[in-house]
Amino acid sequence: MSSILQFPAQDARTAPEPISAVEALKLAEPLAAQLAASAVARDQAGGHAREERELIRASGLLALTIPTQHGGMGAPWPTFYRVLRRLAQADSALAHVFGFHHLQLAGVLLYGNEPQQQRLLGQTLAQRLFWGNALNPLDKRLLATDTRTGYRLDGIKSFASGSVGSDWLTISAWHAPTQTALIGVVPTEAPGVSVNADWDAFGQKQTDSGTVAFDAVDLAAQDVLQAPGIAPTPQATLRSQIAQLIMANLYLGIAIGALQDALRFNREQARPWFQSGVGASADDPFIQHRYGELWLKVRPAEVLADTAATALQHAWERGPSLTAAERGDVAIAVAEAKVLSHRAAIDIGSQLFELTGARSTSGRFGLDRFWRNARVHTLHDPVDYKLRDLGRYALTGAHPEPTAYS
Amino acid sequence: MSSILQFPAQDARTAPEPISAVEALKLAEPLAAQLAASAVARDQAGGHAREERELIRASGLLALTIPTQHGGMGAPWPTFYRVLRRLAQADSALAHVFGFHHLQLAGVLLYGNEPQQQRLLGQTLAQRLFWGNALNPLDKRLLATDTRTGYRLDGIKSFASGSVGSDWLTISAWHAPTQTALIGVVPTEAPGVSVNADWDAFGQKQTDSGTVAFDAVDLAAQDVLQAPGIAPTPQATLRSQIAQLIMANLYLGIAIGALQDALRFNREQARPWFQSGVGASADDPFIQHRYGELWLKVRPAEVLADTAATALQHAWERGPSLTAAERGDVAIAVAEAKVLSHRAAIDIGSQLFELTGARSTSGRFGLDRFWRNARVHTLHDPVDYKLRDLGRYALTGAHPEPTAYS
Amino acid sequence: MSSILQFPAQDARTAPEPISAVEALKLAEPLAAQLAASAVARDQAGGHAREERELIRASGLLALTIPTQHGGMGAPWPTFYRVLRRLAQADSALAHVFGFHHLQLAGVLLYGNEPQQQRLLGQTLAQRLFWGNALNPLDKRLLATDTRTGYRLDGIKSFASGSVGSDWLTISAWHAPTQTALIGVVPTEAPGVSVNADWDAFGQKQTDSGTVAFDAVDLAAQDVLQAPGIAPTPQATLRSQIAQLIMANLYLGIAIGALQDALRFNREQARPWFQSGVGASADDPFIQHRYGELWLKVRPAEVLADTAATALQHAWERGPSLTAAERGDVAIAVAEAKVLSHRAAIDIGSQLFELTGARSTSGRFGLDRFWRNARVHTLHDPVDYKLRDLGRYALTGAHPEPTAYS
Amino acid sequence: MSSILQFPAQDARTAPEPISAVEALKLAEPLAAQLAASAVARDQAGGHAREERELIRASGLLALTIPTQHGGMGAPWPTFYRVLRRLAQADSALAHVFGFHHLQLAGVLLYGNEPQQQRLLGQTLAQRLFWGNALNPLDKRLLATDTRTGYRLDGIKSFASGSVGSDWLTISAWHAPTQTALIGVVPTEAPGVSVNADWDAFGQKQTDSGTVAFDAVDLAAQDVLQAPGIAPTPQATLRSQIAQLIMANLYLGIAIGALQDALRFNREQARPWFQSGVGASADDPFIQHRYGELWLKVRPAEVLADTAATALQHAWERGPSLTAAERGDVAIAVAEAKVLSHRAAIDIGSQLFELTGARSTSGRFGLDRFWRNARVHTLHDPVDYKLRDLGRYALTGAHPEPTAYS
Repeated sequence: MSSILQFPAQDARTAPEPISAVEALKLAEPLAAQLAASAVARDQAGGHAREERELIRASGLLALTIPTQHGGMGAPWPTFYRVLRRLAQADSALAHVFGFHHLQLAGVLLYGNEPQQQRLLGQTLAQRLFWGNALNPLDKRLLATDTRTGYRLDGIKSFASGSVGSDWLTISAWHAPTQTALIGVVPTEAPGVSVNADWDAFGQKQTDSGTVAFDAVDLAAQDVLQAPGIAPTPQATLRSQIAQLIMANLYLGIAIGALQDALRFNREQARPWFQSGVGASADDPFIQHRYGELWLKVRPAEVLADTAATALQHAWERGPSLTAAERGDVAIAVAEAKVLSHRAAIDIGSQLFELTGARSTSGRFGLDRFWRNARVHTLHDPVDYKLRDLGRYALTGAHPEPTAYS
Repeated sequence: MSSILQFPAQDARTAPEPISAVEALKLAEPLAAQLAASAVARDQAGGHAREERELIRASGLLALTIPTQHGGMGAPWPTFYRVLRRLAQADSALAHVFGFHHLQLAGVLLYGNEPQQQRLLGQTLAQRLFWGNALNPLDKRLLATDTRTGYRLDGIKSFASGSVGSDWLTISAWHAPTQTALIGVVPTEAPGVSVNADWDAFGQKQTDSGTVAFDAVDLAAQDVLQAPGIAPTPQATLRSQIAQLIMANLYLGIAIGALQDALRFNREQARPWFQSGVGASADDPFIQHRYGELWLKVRPAEVLADTAATALQHAWERGPSLTAAERGDVAIAVAEAKVLSHRAAIDIGSQLFELTGARSTSGRFGLDRFWRNARVHTLHDPVDYKLRDLGRYALTGAHPEPTAYS
Repeated sequence: MSSILQFPAQDARTAPEPISAVEALKLAEPLAAQLAASAVARDQAGGHAREERELIRASGLLALTIPTQHGGMGAPWPTFYRVLRRLAQADSALAHVFGFHHLQLAGVLLYGNEPQQQRLLGQTLAQRLFWGNALNPLDKRLLATDTRTGYRLDGIKSFASGSVGSDWLTISAWHAPTQTALIGVVPTEAPGVSVNADWDAFGQKQTDSGTVAFDAVDLAAQDVLQAPGIAPTPQATLRSQIAQLIMANLYLGIAIGALQDALRFNREQARPWFQSGVGASADDPFIQHRYGELWLKVRPAEVLADTAATALQHAWERGPSLTAAERGDVAIAVAEAKVLSHRAAIDIGSQLFELTGARSTSGRFGLDRFWRNARVHTLHDPVDYKLRDLGRYALTGAHPEPTAYS
Repeated sequence: MSSILQFPAQDARTAPEPISAVEALKLAEPLAAQLAASAVARDQAGGHAREERELIRASGLLALTIPTQHGGMGAPWPTFYRVLRRLAQADSALAHVFGFHHLQLAGVLLYGNEPQQQRLLGQTLAQRLFWGNALNPLDKRLLATDTRTGYRLDGIKSFASGSVGSDWLTISAWHAPTQTALIGVVPTEAPGVSVNADWDAFGQKQTDSGTVAFDAVDLAAQDVLQAPGIAPTPQATLRSQIAQLIMANLYLGIAIGALQDALRFNREQARPWFQSGVGASADDPFIQHRYGELWLKVRPAEVLADTAATALQHAWERGPSLTAAERGDVAIAVAEAKVLSHRAAIDIGSQLFELTGARSTSGRFGLDRFWRNARVHTLHDPVDYKLRDLGRYALTGAHPEPTAYS
């Protein structure tokens, strides 16, 4: 029976061993340090992080989740999420770009056929390509019209994460004859595609998000991953769980990064309050007590995120045999992790200042970026509907309905 | 390398396999059902639960943690805690009696020498003995005076859990010449020992707690587990972590029991509010949302309790090699689980009524017992000092000081 | 323009001055002390509090809200609620009986005509009558059939607060021909009326609540306060706001009583935790901090309850001129007070024990009665729908729909 | 007996009537609108708000708290705080500058003698002068040396709110011979005074805070408000309560401003979540419920801030007769308001986004400024010590020790 820490064994006879979590984190560590060094400055400046994308490319980690039989590192989901979380501690915007690159690769694996996987993953590896997301299915303004060789795409997709500076995009487009959406891939440089870097949120500034316009773009049949009119299998709907758990780990990375920076500030810079009767801020009982509370926001999120990653990996390994109920159990585990991570990030990002004090609000420390990044990112989909999903499951046993967000 | 789900391997050549978690839970299940059947009635009546003790005895589970080389079931700590939690869902008072029985056995293993273990655990098995606790070290009113054959005990111990109806007691007694406490074992029926069932709290009524009076009680040398003047090793101080994790799992059992009873009430008995616009209470979005919140109180407590049990088992298997730092890591893991379980029990025990509504307060449902049991039991030691311990560790890396409570 | 602390001036030429808040509280103080003396014992025993009702009668406070022109004390609502809250600190069950007596009198003033007021309030004064409530309009099992002289009543009303031991009842009954409810008054001793003391909740035990059965009971026309088919005026719908604010002040009384008892315990009985480094429990910084938090639960509830009472009094004085919008503003103010009081009572009733510690759970202190009383009483109607009403008002300006609960 | 809404009556025979709250708010309204119009842009740009200071000057409100006998508007404290709160809804940074101007005027009234009041307040009125604060007593780096005509000042004061662009400064300076601080006033343009606009926090950007350097600055005897070696009277220590209540009202203004902007966004711009089943965001029951929660954060803070302002005014009117106990009661009332306002601002500033959703994070709305402003400003002094003060008072009756922060 295959262990949860190995990729599905179908070609494992010939393919090399997947990368271990320890090795993957070793690759991530220097990258995280590089990102951290400029994170405060880049948070203030905003804009496209061209150089930092090159650092990611150079780390080799764009191949992290590509199966070993396709020449990649073959990291199972728990390893990927650990790496993602580590990067998010340093820079949650670039970690998002990194995470969504791998989400697109998962899409190729979940929706694409073998030749498509071979071609697209092969190119990705060979040319160190970056993938961006233009798949938001709630935005139905991009239309696909049938042509002799495939489809013609016209319209726009907004909130396309990682689109600015990407090489390939995954897209969804509304197909009127079938009243369904198709899913395909398009080179960002394809004729008729233009990316407008219009993301202007107060946090997660460097997620390279934008609005992608398509003007008579040719989508060849070979670039269609899921044709219109196809009802998605439970396996295919794992994509939204992979995406949700990316969110959770980004939030968690923010929470951990915030907690670490705050602890460092209290150890190294904070002064004891004049009424505290202690010689160092770290000895103030109220400060110790509050750090105990913040600690108890991070730890549950951490263990439940790990639990969810393991559950996802099990489901992933089930392949096409995955049942709706098994998929639903993953959705519950992911929802648990997402809500807890959401709250950890928001609460720690905001409450850390009660501990670090007035001087820690100087712009040169950039400690407000944790709250701003968490605040912007945690609005991806409303937490109240996740809580409802969890409560409804507890009450009735009904799993969350598979959607792009659940 | 020995797995965390097996008992230390030293004598595993000859000793039978320890019981599996699945088997142990199978034994616990009918016992839990028996306890649940009368739990509401016994909560109201209070008093000594003689018959229910017999049910526990009959289940064979008094041998659960006795190592297989001594003839017991050899359950590792994670298995024991799962069983404990299951029983606590049904009846947290008798689960406490059960848990503290095993705590005393752990004391024999941690403090006692090989012949003591052989004799005391052997007798426990052969005669299905029940152990009670009279070890509270903050209570220094029990004095040990040197005699030719051991010590003479005089004084009292209050809050002695499980003492009423027990066969043996573990005791601590203050030894003036060395200004330290000794630890020993005494048959409850020994001449000079008398147990006063004076426990009158508004919850955990049937924990068989009492005040034990010792009047010139003879403590033979062979019944001294830890002589006066001995500084406890890190291994020996694991006892307080075992005790703390018993508390955590009792709280967690209460939380789970409360949540299950509440869910059942909403499914089967609650009526929708006239302004809700839905036909069943379980379809009210506010009720679903709140259950999502309660669910997220139980789940983190559950996974962190399991994580702590695994950490404890690792430390237990280290035996005398256990370092202070390793012991400290267990204390942190246990503190995390204890605080979360504490809050889950109190919050769910109190908030469930917002969901089940006015009719659920009828005395015949006994749903208030969860809050009362949790409220009484969670005061064992103050949660604020646990939070301080966690925060101080985060700030400075200092582990909790080993005490009877940390 | 009449002050908010005086009763409407219509007959003030001849009527004596209404009682002042100071005088009313002076009457309440010894009664509160008497109730407090036996509150723990009576909470444990439950049952009908015949003697304590006599103490209330003897205090004269049954006349508190009867207008001076009818011979009563004429207390305005703010004074009544202060007295109610004071009594609830001592005994929230009997305070409920007291509060609901005055709610019935308010019903006579709001629905009854001048001769009815004269007769019923006059009798109440002269014979020191106690009123009970059988008006729950969600319970439609009591039917009114037209007769030549009025109506015939058949059926039952459950959850009739204060019915056991009452002299008169206010009732609502469903009138099929008009598909509406009538409101009337019935002597509890009238032929065909029987009260079954079936209230068995785990808190608020002595509210003398029961199920009232009506078997061919004659309701004379002169005892009908509101005939069937009459749409209630904004003034008439004030009754539910008076009731809701009674709830709020009962909760608040519980919260204050709990806080006071807890503070006393910490001052007089609690021991400092051995790791606190202080000589008295009251000097522990964590305990001080937590009391700061509890204090901040009581104070807002207090000031908003007072604010709501003033708003209610203004609306009351507007008489038949009261508009729906003015009535809606009262409902918002009352909802604010009710939610905050609800939470203060539940939170303090449960959290006080973190401060008072393990020894405070002894049954002889009865400190759990605050949580039990609050828990039972705060389920009168769901807090989530109050929050929804407040949020909807903030969003849209829509006032709560007038119902029996809003 | 003088009403709480009138200034002490000593010269009321000749002085004109003080401004009413209604009139004062009428003056504040257009100013608030002007500040609001550019608040988002100025929050992003930061820097000195020269033009907006001129708008404040033009409004006449710099005279708001100057007693009528000195030619000012004579607003009592409750009126001043209402105006301050209104301005803070629009722009909490400039409201702080405005508030601290009046704090300095209060200092002149509390510490200065009659001729000093006459001269300084007269000049302030005649020349529409702006006052800044350099009084932080925890910063002892500014030294006063005796000279023949007064003192010579050398050193620096950091975190001097409103110093940039001010006309006069209130200063405290350490006087070594007496080991106490003196309090005086200095023209910002005085020889040797230089203001360095070094404030770089991520919120409250335009508070014109800076570090003031004093190089052999001459402090004439007539500009000394409180000579060294003088123990402050209870009346004098009211200054820190005035300052604390300024903080509370600034926080409250932020909370109200945030709530209003959020409500407007939900009404006008937010889209309903696709799973909500409603046609408008404002009809989503979860959104209504959450707004109910936010509403209940603002309302208690509001009523307790008003209660505290009334208490302060009473104490102010007591003048030199004010006792330490009476001063202590004010400190309790102010502490209540400050903690609640602190939390309302932080919580609403952060949580509003759960309601307004992802699109509301666009930089063009600037909705993050509420959290950033609240976060920076609420760190003035630690909330945990306020909670301790409240709890200690509840436990022991001890009032907060008079300090610059309590």
